[in-house]
Amino acid sequence: MLFFTQCFGAVLDLIHLRFQHYKAKRVFSAAGQLVCVVNPTHSLKYAPARCAAAQTSAEQGILPPCHHHEAVHDPQLVPCTCPLFSCPWEGHLEVVVSHLRQTHRINILQGAEIVFLATDMHLPAPTDWIIMHSCLGHQFLLVLRKQEKYEGHPQFFATMMLIGTPTQADNFTYRLELNRNQRRLKWEATPRSVLERVDSVISDGDCLVLNTSLAQLFSDNGSLAIGIAITTSKVHNAEAEM
Amino acid sequence: MLFFTQCFGAVLDLIHLRFQHYKAKRVFSAAGQLVCVVNPTHSLKYAPARCAAAQTSAEQGILPPCHHHEAVHDPQLVPCTCPLFSCPWEGHLEVVVSHLRQTHRINILQGAEIVFLATDMHLPAPTDWIIMHSCLGHQFLLVLRKQEKYEGHPQFFATMMLIGTPTQADNFTYRLELNRNQRRLKWEATPRSVLERVDSVISDGDCLVLNTSLAQLFSDNGSLAIGIAITTSKVHNAEAEM
Repeated sequence: MLFFTQCFGAVLDLIHLRFQHYKAKRVFSAAGQLVCVVNPTHSLKYAPARCAAAQTSAEQGILPPCHHHEAVHDPQLVPCTCPLFSCPWEGHLEVVVSHLRQTHRINILQGAEIVFLATDMHLPAPTDWIIMHSCLGHQFLLVLRKQEKYEGHPQFFATMMLIGTPTQADNFTYRLELNRNQRRLKWEATPRSVLERVDSVISDGDCLVLNTSLAQLFSDNGSLAIGIAITTSKVHNAEAEM
Repeated sequence: MLFFTQCFGAVLDLIHLRFQHYKAKRVFSAAGQLVCVVNPTHSLKYAPARCAAAQTSAEQGILPPCHHHEAVHDPQLVPCTCPLFSCPWEGHLEVVVSHLRQTHRINILQGAEIVFLATDMHLPAPTDWIIMHSCLGHQFLLVLRKQEKYEGHPQFFATMMLIGTPTQADNFTYRLELNRNQRRLKWEATPRSVLERVDSVISDGDCLVLNTSLAQLFSDNGSLAIGIAITTSKVHNAEAEM
């Protein structure tokens, strides 16, 4: 009996996801845009230090083995850039993507324009929604974070970072767009490098910031759809559209 | 001697304003855009009730006489919509603009696209920057407010309201745009009617909201330039640009 109840629940979940996917596609109606449903992850960064794997709400309890890189103090090595965990891994910038993918189970998506559909926005802070985005020959890390900068008043912070150097990051412009109920909010900026750390970008407030009330206005049934586009800076002219 | 010092100060202020005007024009480079320098007004709404005139920083101490409208309880009369003062005036919607202009000394500007240059952003909350904007045959009230929703953490709230009914307001879309240092933030929405009151729009958070850190990123020498555009909703298609 329990088995059938669970099966029925899973089928309902699938229908719900399909419906959310359809709605997000309808809002962000440009042809060929990929809608990616992103589940929340409760940040374990300030939990007791261990090399934990990404525990998405769908995969809780599955902990792949740690792959520690023995410290050789090579100046070209960078620490793990995963915003979720205090991970002792370090390696060359070129292998950060595969580390994030394999150890921290962060999904990677292709395409110049995608829709990031963050589910369960009501979950308490601190919570993160994270994907990697492969585009224009580079990989980007998109982080949406719910955090209480002021106690009792959670806010949402969204930013896109290049998995590359600050010099490489200067060649790009990213755009985050919310669009619902005849309201539209757009944030455009040069991505920061993951070497600058997500935590500093968010504490500097140099990203898209949403109060809970604004996040609710743009949410649909607890999910927030963020349209994402990346262009090279040569194409982008910050003053052209005014 | 004091006279010459003051004259010299006034000339310096003029040069500074001219320079700010030039810079704002350079950022918002579309031809024909009017740049309007808006001085802050300390909100007196919650001060002892009186029919006070707008005390702009340039005009402090000048209090024009009150023009009370004798209450006749005509259902077509609306209260004073000035967000700054608890004013007992009431009148027909058609004369709200002249009341705001004459009694509260709120400036009015013409043009479909203007640049609102708010000065002295560092002043403590509560502070308002207000103008009226005449466009497409209607008048709009633009309010930028610095307010502490959470004690010790001032935020900026910007909204545009139609001096008209909610049904008339539904025919328009307004856009507020910040653009500086390779960052751009755009808010687009249907204006609310002044009959819905600025205070409720701001407490609902249904407007452009800026943290102090974000406001600083977009400010230049203590002034914030906001590009404003109003279109009719028929022209605007919320899903076209995605």
